[in-house]
Amino acid sequence: MKNFIGAKESYTSAKIVLFGVPFDATSSFRAGSRFGPDFIRLVSDEIETYSPYQDRDLEDINFMDAGNLEISPGDIGSAMDVIHDFSAKLIKDNKIPFALGGEHLITYPIIKALRKKYREITLIHLDAHTDLREGYMGFQLSHASVIRLIWDLKNISLVQVGIRSGTREEFRFMKKNQTLYSLNQLEKINEKIRNKNVYITLDVDVFDPSVLPGTGTPEAGGMTFVPFMEFLLGLRDFNLIGLDVVELNPEVDRSQNSSIFASQLVRELLLKVYSK
Amino acid sequence: MKNFIGAKESYTSAKIVLFGVPFDATSSFRAGSRFGPDFIRLVSDEIETYSPYQDRDLEDINFMDAGNLEISPGDIGSAMDVIHDFSAKLIKDNKIPFALGGEHLITYPIIKALRKKYREITLIHLDAHTDLREGYMGFQLSHASVIRLIWDLKNISLVQVGIRSGTREEFRFMKKNQTLYSLNQLEKINEKIRNKNVYITLDVDVFDPSVLPGTGTPEAGGMTFVPFMEFLLGLRDFNLIGLDVVELNPEVDRSQNSSIFASQLVRELLLKVYSK
Amino acid sequence: MKNFIGAKESYTSAKIVLFGVPFDATSSFRAGSRFGPDFIRLVSDEIETYSPYQDRDLEDINFMDAGNLEISPGDIGSAMDVIHDFSAKLIKDNKIPFALGGEHLITYPIIKALRKKYREITLIHLDAHTDLREGYMGFQLSHASVIRLIWDLKNISLVQVGIRSGTREEFRFMKKNQTLYSLNQLEKINEKIRNKNVYITLDVDVFDPSVLPGTGTPEAGGMTFVPFMEFLLGLRDFNLIGLDVVELNPEVDRSQNSSIFASQLVRELLLKVYSK
Amino acid sequence: MKNFIGAKESYTSAKIVLFGVPFDATSSFRAGSRFGPDFIRLVSDEIETYSPYQDRDLEDINFMDAGNLEISPGDIGSAMDVIHDFSAKLIKDNKIPFALGGEHLITYPIIKALRKKYREITLIHLDAHTDLREGYMGFQLSHASVIRLIWDLKNISLVQVGIRSGTREEFRFMKKNQTLYSLNQLEKINEKIRNKNVYITLDVDVFDPSVLPGTGTPEAGGMTFVPFMEFLLGLRDFNLIGLDVVELNPEVDRSQNSSIFASQLVRELLLKVYSK
Amino acid sequence: MKNFIGAKESYTSAKIVLFGVPFDATSSFRAGSRFGPDFIRLVSDEIETYSPYQDRDLEDINFMDAGNLEISPGDIGSAMDVIHDFSAKLIKDNKIPFALGGEHLITYPIIKALRKKYREITLIHLDAHTDLREGYMGFQLSHASVIRLIWDLKNISLVQVGIRSGTREEFRFMKKNQTLYSLNQLEKINEKIRNKNVYITLDVDVFDPSVLPGTGTPEAGGMTFVPFMEFLLGLRDFNLIGLDVVELNPEVDRSQNSSIFASQLVRELLLKVYSK
Amino acid sequence: MKNFIGAKESYTSAKIVLFGVPFDATSSFRAGSRFGPDFIRLVSDEIETYSPYQDRDLEDINFMDAGNLEISPGDIGSAMDVIHDFSAKLIKDNKIPFALGGEHLITYPIIKALRKKYREITLIHLDAHTDLREGYMGFQLSHASVIRLIWDLKNISLVQVGIRSGTREEFRFMKKNQTLYSLNQLEKINEKIRNKNVYITLDVDVFDPSVLPGTGTPEAGGMTFVPFMEFLLGLRDFNLIGLDVVELNPEVDRSQNSSIFASQLVRELLLKVYSK
Repeated sequence: MKNFIGAKESYTSAKIVLFGVPFDATSSFRAGSRFGPDFIRLVSDEIETYSPYQDRDLEDINFMDAGNLEISPGDIGSAMDVIHDFSAKLIKDNKIPFALGGEHLITYPIIKALRKKYREITLIHLDAHTDLREGYMGFQLSHASVIRLIWDLKNISLVQVGIRSGTREEFRFMKKNQTLYSLNQLEKINEKIRNKNVYITLDVDVFDPSVLPGTGTPEAGGMTFVPFMEFLLGLRDFNLIGLDVVELNPEVDRSQNSSIFASQLVRELLLKVYSK
Repeated sequence: MKNFIGAKESYTSAKIVLFGVPFDATSSFRAGSRFGPDFIRLVSDEIETYSPYQDRDLEDINFMDAGNLEISPGDIGSAMDVIHDFSAKLIKDNKIPFALGGEHLITYPIIKALRKKYREITLIHLDAHTDLREGYMGFQLSHASVIRLIWDLKNISLVQVGIRSGTREEFRFMKKNQTLYSLNQLEKINEKIRNKNVYITLDVDVFDPSVLPGTGTPEAGGMTFVPFMEFLLGLRDFNLIGLDVVELNPEVDRSQNSSIFASQLVRELLLKVYSK
Repeated sequence: MKNFIGAKESYTSAKIVLFGVPFDATSSFRAGSRFGPDFIRLVSDEIETYSPYQDRDLEDINFMDAGNLEISPGDIGSAMDVIHDFSAKLIKDNKIPFALGGEHLITYPIIKALRKKYREITLIHLDAHTDLREGYMGFQLSHASVIRLIWDLKNISLVQVGIRSGTREEFRFMKKNQTLYSLNQLEKINEKIRNKNVYITLDVDVFDPSVLPGTGTPEAGGMTFVPFMEFLLGLRDFNLIGLDVVELNPEVDRSQNSSIFASQLVRELLLKVYSK
Repeated sequence: MKNFIGAKESYTSAKIVLFGVPFDATSSFRAGSRFGPDFIRLVSDEIETYSPYQDRDLEDINFMDAGNLEISPGDIGSAMDVIHDFSAKLIKDNKIPFALGGEHLITYPIIKALRKKYREITLIHLDAHTDLREGYMGFQLSHASVIRLIWDLKNISLVQVGIRSGTREEFRFMKKNQTLYSLNQLEKINEKIRNKNVYITLDVDVFDPSVLPGTGTPEAGGMTFVPFMEFLLGLRDFNLIGLDVVELNPEVDRSQNSSIFASQLVRELLLKVYSK
Repeated sequence: MKNFIGAKESYTSAKIVLFGVPFDATSSFRAGSRFGPDFIRLVSDEIETYSPYQDRDLEDINFMDAGNLEISPGDIGSAMDVIHDFSAKLIKDNKIPFALGGEHLITYPIIKALRKKYREITLIHLDAHTDLREGYMGFQLSHASVIRLIWDLKNISLVQVGIRSGTREEFRFMKKNQTLYSLNQLEKINEKIRNKNVYITLDVDVFDPSVLPGTGTPEAGGMTFVPFMEFLLGLRDFNLIGLDVVELNPEVDRSQNSSIFASQLVRELLLKVYSK
Repeated sequence: MKNFIGAKESYTSAKIVLFGVPFDATSSFRAGSRFGPDFIRLVSDEIETYSPYQDRDLEDINFMDAGNLEISPGDIGSAMDVIHDFSAKLIKDNKIPFALGGEHLITYPIIKALRKKYREITLIHLDAHTDLREGYMGFQLSHASVIRLIWDLKNISLVQVGIRSGTREEFRFMKKNQTLYSLNQLEKINEKIRNKNVYITLDVDVFDPSVLPGTGTPEAGGMTFVPFMEFLLGLRDFNLIGLDVVELNPEVDRSQNSSIFASQLVRELLLKVYSK
């Protein structure tokens, strides 16, 4: 597997480990996010290793790219196990896991693995959709219920940003539990995450379909790149314990522009780990 | 024909009747809006029935989907008759007609039918183009002259929003008749429509091609979703007598993202009928 | 749901019942066959109801279109149950089931339902791939093992046509059990199926990718339309108890030409039921 | 307008005049053949001027490219007039008209113009569809009835090749009037056209959708390039009075391969005029 | 070659001469900008000749379209010569050269030709990328080093707008030489260009990939149409000696929307020459 | 870089070395073959390692995948050197070079390297185009003249198969030198290659555009898969010293079907090395 641009070879010295999860079995509309990791890597040569936003370069930091996990299409249970076990190994080795989806359900087994190490986790959830369903179409393990599944693990503090689609019940849940924030409420979010162990899960459909058309369930009214960068760079005083970028579907946007965009997001998130 | 998501079965109890008009015979650049209604319905499952913008759900309101009118391609005269007669029947049965285009010319026979019931009509025209030509390439019945045709029916009050393309003559017409408004002039518009019988015609190319690439004649510099929603929700104190969404061309945007966007517009407009 | 062209409304009088199975959870390469049934119906208006190959018209025969089954994406077990139960009901009502996939795994629960009525079944399997795996990537219920699963139901007589891809073990299985035939061996096949209860399962990737590009796992060297028609029309003296057309993936071929081709296949197969 | 490769500048000395007819108003499924002439020219640079099939070069022959006619979209009557009048002028000037469609209806006004000069015309009609409807969807002037309209001009001798789609009535018409031939019946066709004034109308959907996917109404089971060339080169002893290539829809095949194919057809037909 | 909409025929009286440069030999990611000029012209009919932004019409101004230069693919040296010599001729004839790329390297020979007439040139460089490399992948003549090559011609004053990608070294160069401006620094820019001979080079990837997806190396966070127009119209008191629009890649955006957008940019730049 | 399916890790024990050459600088129509090697590898997982045509499996043979050469876009001279030097090293190490293009010009430096070892080389050239130009558009190093360049190296015996496009001069060259064969002349070819050192260069446009649409310069009337396989398997009694597969352009065929087809060609050629 071609590595993400700037990745180093050594596992031992790596602080962050990228890995691909080509899994999209529960996608409700258009599957294809299984190709996300391959395309993010394929086009990553096109972007620079240097970020003018952070004045930092991928060449200066220490991460490796472990390639894709082997996932059997259609076998959800075993997929969950494979993701969990790989994440657990990384955590044991003191690596920060950085998963490239695949669909959003993959976040669940990673958080389960992290919960064995961290008693409390603060989840920053960037997404167009609430993903708070109590099961979806009669099925528990689904991209549409992943945040609810994580919430039910207990001791999860939830910061949701960009949400603009869900059922009435899901919006009531957010209201009741005060989990929903806007990009402008950076300081309130910084208060909530201060000194916490934070996991960032970025569903790329949080972006407007105009800037990232390549996703299975696009939703009008999303954010654009510059406000996202201001938000990301404004987050501070927390301990980043894991990340993922999910739901890129290269099949939907055959120009590969969405993959290039996602590739740039990965670069900025990698560099963000080193900020502070 | 698959129904639009959330449509009820009963014509008798329906307040609004959706119908498709697969007609694009006068499209000057790229035809294909004939497929608009089918694709809006096809992807409508992908969106939620609940709108967080209006805190209202399609399940709670009463509309039915009458499918597509049968239109003979190329026979413009008979197409106008079919649209007119179907609209007239709906109006007679006290239904609010909601047409899914098809090209913009379809608005003309609907307004003609409505004018038999309403002596004066206020038209809110959202579009990138003025559509005020006195004939187009020597031909009277054309998408490029539809608003002029309607204007010539007399007793039409015109509110044009989003216009950014036309001939010098058309722009002079707008200036002379003071028909052009910006999204920011909501209060001036509310004054103009107060207690009026209002018809909303939404040419999807009023949106920026970035958020809705799937249209025949895209024009740079259009509006985006959130400002549109603020405008739509800000309209008040009028009597909505009909609506249409026209000029979606699914052939141009094969990712189906534009159809999903249009599907969401239809949901918001349907729910707006119930606001007040 | 829009019906397939020429479908009648009455279930009671129908001899054949078309139904869609939007299921593709175990697709190994490119998912998307879930959209097969919708697109076959959507474009079916484009073809004529009359077949010059059979000199017979859809208007003259009696079939209905029951729409799509409701399938929860990602929940394979329950999908199998839904397909089985619906098929069982059709069989009980003396209808011939005609399934539109979806991926190939959907044939398995249909055959299971048919086996309760018929002690022996002869399967005519048109496909590029053997689908004889004993499990695929460690997973039993898979499109790649569907024919093996059916074989293991016992009392299955197998006629495989068009196969040109598989593992060495699968090709040995075919050789040992003498299941593989070429299009030219029509008479040998007619002998094998004489007076038998026959189910035809048509994986569209049996066709050359040039004539049907829209499939998940295309394989060079396939058949073309005219030889297929000669084969189909040459089959005789058997009792047709069920059919399916699977693995059309409209996402791969966005021109919709593959869907039009599949639509024509469905017409010919429907009319073939009435030959004898 | 960019000229077709190898076109000369002089109208006076030209034997053949190519002209584009960007008209597709009656297309029943997918419009877009209006872009046919532009794309045929655009990609014509990609092919060689030399044909190894005929051992003849476009550089050696005398044709000019008159660009596109100005057609008002949607105004069928005036479009017919424009095509007729332009053709009539060419005929008066002793040019052979060679039209690039556009949809098939454009052949009708050209033949009408030719009939004023020639009392009898033999039409070689290459097409997937009979186009013999007596009106289509209640409308007379339609691509689906173009051959019937021409037939009704009287004194038309008809040779139909490649037809494989139509209604039962149309197939009966062909049988009764013995108009249908296969590619193999070259000698019977040569008898019928001997010493006749022949017009060749080539609807590109006569080709298999595999070799020419870019057309509005593809139909399985068509011909391929080499047998077509053998047929074309085998035609002899007739007087060629006009030609057209219609129904290329570049919107359907965005790879432009279909336009390149059509471009090559145009080259071979141009050179064929000079054979004898 | 089809002319750009509104172009006049006479070279003698033309003030501006448009010409296409189908050259993309050094494109690092996706070649295809060679098709830029053809597609800009092809779709230019779709836009109006009238600009409501400038209240000025292409019909009122005097420019001609000289078609495309003949460029041998792969022979960079001779391509540079062809561009240089053609530009030199235009400059000698007192025409303003307006080049349609092609890739960005084409700006270099134009500036070289202009430098023979003008001792000092102020370059307004709109781009996502710095293009300040000292050679790219060991090669000097490259789109990635074009601005550096120009800078090294001496007596170049540089205004860079929209830059958001480059190496650390390139960003340091910009900082040291104070070449980078934001759209908001219009007045500072106007000071810098006052009474200067100004060349505007517009790499279309300065725009956000959402509004112009059709480019080889898209970069998130770009500008949109309206702010660009405000910037363009705000520039004043300078002498415009040449322009180019480069890096449109129609292959990447097959909807042709990007070409339409570029076509509109060309119209606005043409009209801008006449402002003052 | 992801390896081609079935590749072994060890260079030392490898008999064949695959390597990618992402070079397309002289492409005359549509560049993009630079992405050929990446896409062949990316989709190679989709095909089986077992070939039923040869009853042989990639797992049983010994080849490695050396990834892509580093090529500077636009610098043809240095690209030629890089390819030559890498090939020379392989030849020195007694490996059989197997290049994945990239455009056809890449064959030239490989043959140059082989000529240092082999005094005479027999070239089997499968292609739609003669590639015998003496320079193309005034430029010597071009895909259109690659076979002529090789011929001019002297002591080249040439077998051309599938050629159907070129200038009159090129066809005369082939006639004079008797280099052109049809697929049916297998035995004549076998005579010519008996006991010779043979290099096979396969330009994928030798195939019909229907089966392989993804190429820059498609040409009607090409071969299909099964006849090609019969030809390939029928070649015998020669010493295979090198191979390449060139001119796959994945940008043209975004369905990736062409890449899958090419991937299968690579498998069959790899296995053919082991036949005898």
